[in-house]
Amino acid sequence: MSFSVSILATGSELLDGRVVDTNSNYVAQILSELGLKLRRVLVVDDDESELLIGLRQLMDVSDIVITSGGLGPTTDDLTRDIVSKFFGVGLYEEPAGRRHLEEFYAKRGRLMDESNLKQALLPVGSTMIPNELGTAPGFSMSNAGGPVVCSLSGVPREFKKMFNDSVLPLIKARATGVTELRRVNFKTFGVPESVVGKIVQSCDVPSEVTVSYRAAFPEVHVVLKYPAGFAIEDVAARVRKNLGLDVVFSEDAKASFSSAVQDLLLKEGATVATAESCTGGMIGATITSLPGSSAVYKGSVVSYSNSIKERILSVPSDILASHGAVSAEVVTIMARRVRELMGTTYGIAVSGVAGPDGGTSEKPVGTFFVAVSGPTGEWSLRCLYPGERHIVRNYATYVSLDLLRRQLSGLQLPESYPILASVRDL
Amino acid sequence: MSFSVSILATGSELLDGRVVDTNSNYVAQILSELGLKLRRVLVVDDDESELLIGLRQLMDVSDIVITSGGLGPTTDDLTRDIVSKFFGVGLYEEPAGRRHLEEFYAKRGRLMDESNLKQALLPVGSTMIPNELGTAPGFSMSNAGGPVVCSLSGVPREFKKMFNDSVLPLIKARATGVTELRRVNFKTFGVPESVVGKIVQSCDVPSEVTVSYRAAFPEVHVVLKYPAGFAIEDVAARVRKNLGLDVVFSEDAKASFSSAVQDLLLKEGATVATAESCTGGMIGATITSLPGSSAVYKGSVVSYSNSIKERILSVPSDILASHGAVSAEVVTIMARRVRELMGTTYGIAVSGVAGPDGGTSEKPVGTFFVAVSGPTGEWSLRCLYPGERHIVRNYATYVSLDLLRRQLSGLQLPESYPILASVRDL
Repeated sequence: MSFSVSILATGSELLDGRVVDTNSNYVAQILSELGLKLRRVLVVDDDESELLIGLRQLMDVSDIVITSGGLGPTTDDLTRDIVSKFFGVGLYEEPAGRRHLEEFYAKRGRLMDESNLKQALLPVGSTMIPNELGTAPGFSMSNAGGPVVCSLSGVPREFKKMFNDSVLPLIKARATGVTELRRVNFKTFGVPESVVGKIVQSCDVPSEVTVSYRAAFPEVHVVLKYPAGFAIEDVAARVRKNLGLDVVFSEDAKASFSSAVQDLLLKEGATVATAESCTGGMIGATITSLPGSSAVYKGSVVSYSNSIKERILSVPSDILASHGAVSAEVVTIMARRVRELMGTTYGIAVSGVAGPDGGTSEKPVGTFFVAVSGPTGEWSLRCLYPGERHIVRNYATYVSLDLLRRQLSGLQLPESYPILASVRDL
Repeated sequence: MSFSVSILATGSELLDGRVVDTNSNYVAQILSELGLKLRRVLVVDDDESELLIGLRQLMDVSDIVITSGGLGPTTDDLTRDIVSKFFGVGLYEEPAGRRHLEEFYAKRGRLMDESNLKQALLPVGSTMIPNELGTAPGFSMSNAGGPVVCSLSGVPREFKKMFNDSVLPLIKARATGVTELRRVNFKTFGVPESVVGKIVQSCDVPSEVTVSYRAAFPEVHVVLKYPAGFAIEDVAARVRKNLGLDVVFSEDAKASFSSAVQDLLLKEGATVATAESCTGGMIGATITSLPGSSAVYKGSVVSYSNSIKERILSVPSDILASHGAVSAEVVTIMARRVRELMGTTYGIAVSGVAGPDGGTSEKPVGTFFVAVSGPTGEWSLRCLYPGERHIVRNYATYVSLDLLRRQLSGLQLPESYPILASVRDL
């Protein structure tokens, strides 16, 4: 059995539904990057007997047990007592812990109630784990050669920092045979996960490389993990080629779909404006979620009602009457006009039936049209995803930005987005 | 010890970080409404020994153990084998399970691979739990008088339906002394959780009533839980009065902030248009997230650049030059002009410095101005929340809608939003 890390999470709020335990998932993700996996996660109540039983069960099968929570100043914070009891030692007041508490309150101009000093008590023989972001320090403790308990604050941002600064180095030092794996990322949009999987499987990925998939709806991310020294270039090139540039929008682990589009606009020195109907402002909101978006984005006309399409975007009323607001003709004019109105390089537009009402047999709920108008021409596309309102709107936002991305990248207008047809299989 | 429910969640994806276990939190929330709390949650790998040890540990301390996952057709789906082993019985093919599988595939026009029939195998002596939304049926099993295992699919929507339809009735029938608590909800916006807590504490809530708080950022929800038959009216009236209508935007458990605003608009037969700068379309996106929003919403001008503020919203260039785009004067004109332009009852507008760049000593990052223009007058307000970009934008969206809500409700323009000043304490 390989090196084994377990988590003992404590807190009423985890068992009565107020809080979701995200700390365990965080640790699991980091371990996974080291080629390790959590052994067990156990969530128990703030109860002496439950905590002690839980700690024993995990210490029996683990090299490191991380406890999350129960280090605060109140009577239901029991972790330090339980760990002491487990090792059969008492508590002492750690001077560095007391100093930290005094400074923490002084810095914030707040008076420290004496009850807070409980947080400076640590099991005799333990090593303090600093908590820069909160009050309660943590600690690590073990018997010679035995498994280690690392007790951390349960507050997620405190837990994460304490884990990264103090527990992760310990894991790296103790876990033999752990090789930090390197990664190549392919972030894709437009085809379903099952198809992405089949394409990657056809790439003869050698056994040294682990492939994992993450569905970050509606994106699918492919990660190739490989040990340092392995020549990944050929494999990566095959995957890149077979997936295709029309599907892979980024190979940067930190990139978002909108940042990939923003980077293309910045590179070309281009700007964009949007004309939105069923998305109601989501495309603009997505673009402007990024710092620096003012360099590429001028604005939007959200023409939720037809009168606004006519009055502000000058869509002729006879075209609205003959084709309907949800049509290739109307979105093309919307994209063209908003581009002229705002003086941008590109204009993109969306109009659709997001539902749950408003569908017809010809244009059922989930039908939407997208268009892009740019220096190399105008594209429009009809799409259908018969799903819930927020998903239809989310897809419409993605597809509109994807048309812009494809035009900016010199790619072709796709015939359709397979993800929209087969998403029900996901 | 009261009636005791534990969860055994299985799956590599929970331990390698790909998936967060949300099923446990769902069960915890439902149990909490019955006045029950989960006993333990244990997450283990798809491994025979781990599963069997985990099941034993939980059966020792629980009246019901719910297993989540491991019912699928592949070799790492071990739950049915482990439960059989635990009870010392074999497996049999359940005809209703086989029928379900055949119908499931036939309905979807898909061919069923024979390997799927593994999912119709159940422990001898168990009772099938139907899975209407997926392929694998679950089952429940116990020795006479002993604790019950309920094995459910791990797929969240399947798990939830199976839990509600089959496990919840069992819990209600077995757990003695469980009284389904009734609830009064107060959904608030504008003051921090600590202040909401102090106000409610001052309301002399009797011991029969449990108060709980949920921070649904940036909203704070207060729930009073009380047994059937308890006269809650006086208590609820005190809480309602002390919190105040300016802070409580809804008492409906299902209402969202935007649906509360939409209801007010519908009631008045009023419409609204938005003019957005730093929010980039978020206010429109929020309003139109609701079905039926076309009855109250006409559209938006997202004037991300100053030239659009001038050209489409006719903000005079000298006012932009003298006061700056982020000013009470500019947002007031934006709200007024978009109201005129779109012919709506109300116009709301936002302009601000969302950051991380663009701040000045006079208008630091996090400064934003909101305005509403309506039949009873024009309001504008300066706000400051020195936080991250997405939080600043989220606050600006909420505050702009809250000004509209207050004007629609005949309330006053607040001097400020305490939540913005003191959110750092959260």
